[in-house]
This record gives sequence, C-alpha cells and structure tokens, in this order.
Amino acid sequence: MADDNVVFVGSKEVMNYVLAVTTQFSEGSDEVILKARGRAISTAVDTAEITRNRFLQDVDIQDITTKTEELEDEEGGTSNVSAITITLGER
Amino acid sequence: MADDNVVFVGSKEVMNYVLAVTTQFSEGSDEVILKARGRAISTAVDTAEITRNRFLQDVDIQDITTKTEELEDEEGGTSNVSAITITLGER
Repeated sequence: MADDNVVFVGSKEVMNYVLAVTTQFSEGSDEVILKARGRAISTAVDTAEITRNRFLQDVDIQDITTKTEELEDEEGGTSNVSAITITLGER
Repeated sequence: MADDNVVFVGSKEVMNYVLAVTTQFSEGSDEVILKARGRAISTAVDTAEITRNRFLQDVDIQDITTKTEELEDEEGGTSNVSAITITLGER
C-alpha cells in the first residue's frame, strides 16, 4: 500500500483534513487511512465523522485500530503515546 | 446490557478511568465499555491502551465504533460532536 492515501492528522483545523480526505477519494482512491497520535486522535475521529456524514455519503468507516507508540525524547528517555488508525472506504 | 459496566470518560486525569475499568473487571465484568465525546476521545483511547498494556494483559479491545451526536445548546440551537465507544473484553 502506497503512503499517498494516508492522511496524517495533527493540530490543524479539522476541515483541512476533511479536504485532504475528499481530495484523495476524488482522485480515485478506494480507501483513505487517517493516522493520528495523542490529542489529535479526537480530530481524526471528527475528520472521519464529518467526511462520511456531510461530504461523502458513500464513504464509511471500515476499521478502527489503536496502539501505543514509544517516543524518544531529546534526553534519550522514552514516553508512550496512543495512536489511532481509521480506514475509510466506499460502502 | 446494564449501564454499570460503562465508564464515561471526561476531562479527569486518565488514571482515574484506568482505575474504574480495572475495578469493573475485578468485580467480575466480562466486558467494560468506554464512552467519550469530543476532546475526551483521546483520553478514552489512552485509557484502553494503558489498561491492556500495563494493567490487564488478558484484556483487549474487542470493538471501536464512532458516531456523531447532536447537542442542544442553551439558545436552542444544535451543534454536532463526535463520540466513541470502545469495548474492552477478555482475550
């Protein structure tokens, strides 16, 4: 799977990510993967919900998985952060 | 399904919810449901990840669903908020 149908959700306003997802589908992707970590997880869920409810009624959430990622900080220590992957596809 | 195996995740520190979940399982629940809306969605995912990775290794995420809920504000208008339901159960 190429990475160009993956949308990384961060701290921008949610409509930026909705636009990115709808663009991917309009360019012919069969599925689009949303990925987010930490506080941006809520924004990723918002992105999926707004996309399927308001913009692309033939798109639905196919799968949601979560995991824990270990991040290395500048002092060489590590901290854990939750991550989510939401797979959007046509119904 | 009785509501006493549902943990509503809000704005408290995540360990409060981890404790609530582990208590439910230790009292004999076969599954525990995490529910959250808006910004608390990230905390619900953290709760699930910390519970299964650090406290209850025999517990895993069985299902994750999201939806959009309509909230009525004080002026009678409505706004939409995303909601998540995470089902935790024994492997």
